[in-house]
Amino acid sequence: MPSSLELLKRRLAETNALSSAISLMGWDQQTYMPRGGAEARAEHLGLLSQMAHEIFVSSETGELLEKAQSEAESEEDRALLRVVGRSYRQSTKLPVALVAEKSRLSAQAHEAWVEAKEASDFKSFAPILERMFEIAREEAEHFGYEHHIYDALLDLYEEGATAAECEAMFAELRGPLIELVRAIQESGRQTDDRFLTGDWPRDKQADFTELLVRGIGFEMSRGRQDVAPHPFCTNFSINDVRLTTRFMPNLTYAIFGSLHEAGHGLYEQGSPQAWDRTPLAGGVSLGIHESQSRFWENIVGRSKPFWQHYLPELQKTFPQLSGVDLATFYRAINRVEPSLTRVEADEVTYNLHVLIRFEIECAILTGKLRVSDLPEAWNAKMEEYLGVTPPDDARGCLQDVHWSMGSIGYFPTYTMGNLLSFQFLAAMQQDLPETDALIAEGRFEPILRWLQEKIYQKGSSVPPKELVLQVTGKPMGASDYLAGICRKYEDIYELDRAPVKA
Amino acid sequence: MPSSLELLKRRLAETNALSSAISLMGWDQQTYMPRGGAEARAEHLGLLSQMAHEIFVSSETGELLEKAQSEAESEEDRALLRVVGRSYRQSTKLPVALVAEKSRLSAQAHEAWVEAKEASDFKSFAPILERMFEIAREEAEHFGYEHHIYDALLDLYEEGATAAECEAMFAELRGPLIELVRAIQESGRQTDDRFLTGDWPRDKQADFTELLVRGIGFEMSRGRQDVAPHPFCTNFSINDVRLTTRFMPNLTYAIFGSLHEAGHGLYEQGSPQAWDRTPLAGGVSLGIHESQSRFWENIVGRSKPFWQHYLPELQKTFPQLSGVDLATFYRAINRVEPSLTRVEADEVTYNLHVLIRFEIECAILTGKLRVSDLPEAWNAKMEEYLGVTPPDDARGCLQDVHWSMGSIGYFPTYTMGNLLSFQFLAAMQQDLPETDALIAEGRFEPILRWLQEKIYQKGSSVPPKELVLQVTGKPMGASDYLAGICRKYEDIYELDRAPVKA
Repeated sequence: MPSSLELLKRRLAETNALSSAISLMGWDQQTYMPRGGAEARAEHLGLLSQMAHEIFVSSETGELLEKAQSEAESEEDRALLRVVGRSYRQSTKLPVALVAEKSRLSAQAHEAWVEAKEASDFKSFAPILERMFEIAREEAEHFGYEHHIYDALLDLYEEGATAAECEAMFAELRGPLIELVRAIQESGRQTDDRFLTGDWPRDKQADFTELLVRGIGFEMSRGRQDVAPHPFCTNFSINDVRLTTRFMPNLTYAIFGSLHEAGHGLYEQGSPQAWDRTPLAGGVSLGIHESQSRFWENIVGRSKPFWQHYLPELQKTFPQLSGVDLATFYRAINRVEPSLTRVEADEVTYNLHVLIRFEIECAILTGKLRVSDLPEAWNAKMEEYLGVTPPDDARGCLQDVHWSMGSIGYFPTYTMGNLLSFQFLAAMQQDLPETDALIAEGRFEPILRWLQEKIYQKGSSVPPKELVLQVTGKPMGASDYLAGICRKYEDIYELDRAPVKA
Repeated sequence: MPSSLELLKRRLAETNALSSAISLMGWDQQTYMPRGGAEARAEHLGLLSQMAHEIFVSSETGELLEKAQSEAESEEDRALLRVVGRSYRQSTKLPVALVAEKSRLSAQAHEAWVEAKEASDFKSFAPILERMFEIAREEAEHFGYEHHIYDALLDLYEEGATAAECEAMFAELRGPLIELVRAIQESGRQTDDRFLTGDWPRDKQADFTELLVRGIGFEMSRGRQDVAPHPFCTNFSINDVRLTTRFMPNLTYAIFGSLHEAGHGLYEQGSPQAWDRTPLAGGVSLGIHESQSRFWENIVGRSKPFWQHYLPELQKTFPQLSGVDLATFYRAINRVEPSLTRVEADEVTYNLHVLIRFEIECAILTGKLRVSDLPEAWNAKMEEYLGVTPPDDARGCLQDVHWSMGSIGYFPTYTMGNLLSFQFLAAMQQDLPETDALIAEGRFEPILRWLQEKIYQKGSSVPPKELVLQVTGKPMGASDYLAGICRKYEDIYELDRAPVKA
C-alpha cells in the first residue's frame, strides 16, 4: 500500500500536469495562437485552472499532507512538505466565492484596463480597480498578518518579506538614487544612443539574440526562443524552458529583453533533474528570480567586458554599427534618463518607479489614498522622484498590467531582484574575483556554475531569506547595489563627487 | 437547480478542455518542442489523458446521460446524447486493465517500431505486434460484433462500417485498378516529373503553400500552418485549427501535403459556431474526414483547372519552373507508378496499398495469418497487386506507424475517403455543374459553400452513413471514384481502351 507521501506526490503530479498544460496554453496564446482561438482558449484556461485548484485544495490533499509529515525521511521530502504545506494553507484560506469573484473580475478588469489605457481614461477603470483593491484587502485579512496589511500580500510573491523591510529598502535607496540621477543630469555629459535605433532585420535580431543566450549558457536543446509582444519566460518542465523576445526599431529591446528572459530561463534550467515536475523544481520567489534576470541582463549584459567580447559579433551581424567603438556603445546602452515608463527605465531610475507603486499600494490598502485620487498621487510622485510628469494616465498610472490582474504587492520584488543581483555578484567575486576577465573572454561557464551551485540547484527548497543568507552571509540590503550602481555611473558620466557611502 | 443535461454539458466542457490541452501538447511536440521536453511531455500527456478518461467513464457521466435522455428537447440535444452515448458505451466496455495495458504497450511499441524500421528488423518488433493484435482481438470481443471481428474495430473509426462492406468495396476496386495500372505501364507514355525535384527555398515553399490554403478558403485568422516532419491537422476549437506541412526536395510534398491538411482543416473550421467546444463540433468520422482532405488535395489540387489558375503564381515564386507548360506540369503531378510506400502512392495505386493492409489485418485477427509470417504475406501481396517487391521490411510491412499505436481497423477509412471524395463531387456537380470553370478562375467559394452546407455544418451530428445518403442520395460506392479516376488517367496517359463500366 502506498504511503500518504507517495499518494500526495501522485496528486501533485496531476496538478503539475495541469499547470504545465496551462503554461503551454499561455505561451501559445502569446506566440502563435491565431486571433480566432482567443475565446476557446480563455474558456479552456478557466476550466483547467479550476480543476487544478480543486484538486489541490481538496480535503484529501490536506489529509495526505498531514499524514505525510511523519513519513518524510529525507531533507528533500521535508522541503517538499514545507513548500506544499505553505501553498495549501494559502490556497485554502480564501473562501471559494472570493477566489471566483477575483477570477471573474480579473478577466473583466484586464479588458477594462486595455480599453482605459488606449483611451487614457482612468475614470472608466477606477470602479473596477477600486473593487480589485477591496478584494486584495479581503484576501489579506483571510491570509492574516502581524504588522501591516501589505505583508500578507507581499508574502505571496516573496515568502517572509514585509512592508517594513520594503520601507527600509526604499528609504536606503531613495536619497542616493535621486542624488545620482541629479548628478548625471547636471553633468552635461548625456550619452547619444540614437545609433541604436534603425531598421534592424528581424531574422538577424533573432540570430544575434540566440547567439547571446546560447553564449551565456542557455541550453537550446532544453528550451527555445520565440517572439512575443511582451517578452516573458515560461516553462513546462525544467527541460523545456521557453524564452520570448521582441524586435523593435531600438535594438536594445531584443538584446536586453532576451538576456533578461534568459536569466529567468537559466534559473529554471538549473534545477536538479531529480526534482523535475515537482514543486521543488524552479525558482523559489519572484525576488530571487528577478535577481537572475537582472544579473544576466544588467550586470553581465550591460557591462563593458561583455561588449568587448560581443561587439565585433554584433557589428558582423549589423554592419551599420561597424563605426561604433566600445566606449560609445557601452555609454549608449547605459544611458540614464528619467522617463515615464517603468519597463523602459534604466538601471538607476528603475527602482524609483517601483517605489512609487509601492507607496501607492500601501496608501490605498491602508485607506490613506482613494483610488479616484490615484492619478494625482501618481503624477505628484513622478514629479517628486523623477522630475517628469506624465502627460496622460496612459503613460502614467495606467501603464502597468499588474493591478488589473489583481497582482497587488508584486512590484517590490522587482527592486529586490535589482538589489540581490548585486549582492550575489559581491558574494560571487569572493570566490571568483576575475568575473570581468571571464566575461570579456566570453567564458560564462564559471559564473553560471557558481550560480547553479549556490542558487539554481536549490530549486524552491530553501526559502528566499534563508537562501540569501546562505549565499551572501547577510540579509538582503541595498549597499552592494548602491555601491555598484554609483561606481558604474560615476565612471560613465565622469561624475566628480564624493563616493557614496554604502 | 441545473438539469442533468446541463450537468452533463458542464462535465463535457471539462473533458473538452483537457482534450484541447492534450491536442495542443501534441501539436507543440511535433512542431516547436525542444528535444529535452520529450520526457516531461510524455508524462504530462499520460496523466491528462487518464484524467480525461476517468472523468468521462465515471458512473456520474453514465447516470447523467441516462437522466438527460428525457430532457433533450432540441434535435441538437438529441444528437449530442447520441454521440456522447456512443463514446461512453465504447469507453466503458473495455476493462481498465486492458486500457492501461494498451496504453503502456503503445508507448513501448512505438519505440520498438522506430528501431525495427531503422534496422529493417521485423523480428524484433514481431512479439510486441503479436500482443498488439491480441489486444485488438480482446477489445473487439469486449465491444461485441454481429458478423466479423473486424466490424468491432472498424466501427471505432467509421461508425457502422463493416468488414463485409470493405470486402465489397475492395472487390469492386481491385480488378479495375490493377487493370488501369497495367494499361498505364503498357502505354509507354510515362510522364517526366524530375523537374519537380530541386533546391526550393523553404520560406518560398511556406509562402506559396500558405497562398494555396488561403486561396481555397482556409481562414488564417482561425488557424495557421507550421512545419512538422509528418504533416497533420489538429485543432483546439473550431476557431483554432492548425495545419502542418513539410519542405522536401520534391516540391509536391509541400503543395499536396498542405492542400491535404487544409482539406481536413476546412472541415473543422466549418462546424457551426454554436457547437464549438462540444462533441458535436468537428468531423464525424475518419472516412468523411479523409474525403475532404482528398477532395481538396486530389480533386481540386491535382486538377488541370487548378494549375491553370496557380501555375503562373508558382512560376513567379520559383522562376526555375517558368519553362514548364501547364500540360507538362499537370502530367507530372499526376504520374502513376507502382511504388513501395503508401504515403507516396499516387491516386490510382493508393487504394491497392490499403487493400493489402485490410486483408492482412483480417487474416491476423481471424487467425489465418501468424504475425511472424506477416513479411512474406505482405511482399506476396505487393507483388500480386502492384508488381513490386519490397527490398526490405522497412520499405515493406514496417512502413506504417498505425499498428504500433494499436490502430488496427483504421486503414480502410483512407479508401473510403478516396471513394467519397468522388461521390461528393458527383453530387456537387448536380447543383454546381461548373466546378471546373470555378476552379480555373480560382473561385473556390461556391465549392466550399456547398461542402459547408451539405457536410461541414453537420459537424458530428449526423452519422457517416446517413450523411452520405443525405448528401449523395446513395450509400458509399466505388463507381464515381472509378469513373473519375479512369477518365482522368485515360486522358493523361492517352489510353486507348474501352471505357470501364462504373
